[in-house]
Amino acid sequence: MKKETYRLIENYMRSCMEDSAHDQEHIYRVLYNALDIAKTERNVNYDILIAACLLHDIGRKEQFENPALCHAKVGSEKAYQFLIEHGFAKDYAEQVKQCIRTHRYRREDLPQSLEARILFDADKLDVAGAIGIARTLVYKGAVSESLYSVSPNGEVLTGENDTNPSFFQEYKYKLEKLYSNFYTKKAMEIARERQQSAVDFYNALYREVSTPYQNGRDELEKRLG
Amino acid sequence: MKKETYRLIENYMRSCMEDSAHDQEHIYRVLYNALDIAKTERNVNYDILIAACLLHDIGRKEQFENPALCHAKVGSEKAYQFLIEHGFAKDYAEQVKQCIRTHRYRREDLPQSLEARILFDADKLDVAGAIGIARTLVYKGAVSESLYSVSPNGEVLTGENDTNPSFFQEYKYKLEKLYSNFYTKKAMEIARERQQSAVDFYNALYREVSTPYQNGRDELEKRLG
Repeated sequence: MKKETYRLIENYMRSCMEDSAHDQEHIYRVLYNALDIAKTERNVNYDILIAACLLHDIGRKEQFENPALCHAKVGSEKAYQFLIEHGFAKDYAEQVKQCIRTHRYRREDLPQSLEARILFDADKLDVAGAIGIARTLVYKGAVSESLYSVSPNGEVLTGENDTNPSFFQEYKYKLEKLYSNFYTKKAMEIARERQQSAVDFYNALYREVSTPYQNGRDELEKRLG
Repeated sequence: MKKETYRLIENYMRSCMEDSAHDQEHIYRVLYNALDIAKTERNVNYDILIAACLLHDIGRKEQFENPALCHAKVGSEKAYQFLIEHGFAKDYAEQVKQCIRTHRYRREDLPQSLEARILFDADKLDVAGAIGIARTLVYKGAVSESLYSVSPNGEVLTGENDTNPSFFQEYKYKLEKLYSNFYTKKAMEIARERQQSAVDFYNALYREVSTPYQNGRDELEKRLG
């Protein structure tokens, strides 16, 4: 990809995401993860891959403002429009669009091309390990959700079989289970290297918060007359 | 403390903090930590300790709306006012007030009474280990700060000697250094048990984000013509 093309697409991405420093950092991690994965694959089209990585989350703002919208779908259409307006070939714009449309984890509409699969894996890697924990906690702070739920009798719930949104609930429903959902060998390898950090953090946090609740409730009971 | 007194003070705390689920969870952890520490100390006045724990952060909203205000000072005055209005003795209200005024980490205005020191330690414990990491990340999300800063040549900074606010900067300036600032032996013990989880998480996160930036920049350079 030409440097000017990179700058043009990067600037458009920045203009779509100017409100969110976190989201911009995520874009560069995904791009760098994708380039790392691409090194281990054959016949990668870097023009498609780099553009798709830079633009994959440009529909976030629309989804945030209207949760009924899917950021992958909105973003893929914005990206296509942007590329056509700037004189890129229809076929190229279409391929970038497909990568973005299928980067989100779902049962249908799975990534088909090599570049789409690399983007998918690179994006999922950013939910694995300590970075996945960090991003989820930052998100919980932004939307004012809890770290954990407490049962009516005052026990901290693990998040398993829990329906109330919380960090522990998201860990058990999503973060804990993502380590086998990759297309490329390289992404699977990196994810597995990161897995233990996430497990250790969850276990430590659960222990640190549940122990005081356990001991504290009994102790409080004793001190209240 | 009588159960009715506990409910009265707890309800006032909840009314002051109704906008923040995280802050309310923190209050109960601090209360439970404090009761755990108190078991290992002699002659603790539980009426003072329990009230001070429940009310220690009721000035948070005022500080959030006007950062020039100190939540410990505002909260201590609100607590005094509330207790006097509800018929508690002046001396009791004054002692609760002192505990709240001195719970914040500062060079002057240090906690004097046993109850003030237990509250101080119980509050600081909630910044130690994995819970300290989790709370800091949630806060960064709420105020839209970054996880890390990147140097002009594209390296992820460790946070050491960094002046830009970020999670790594706060870890290096505050979280990493808090493990010797406790008054009670019990709190020091709990903090030390938690320390390794925080260190491990920081190291894992730094490795996970700095490696893609290092490899990715070089790889991107190769792919741009």
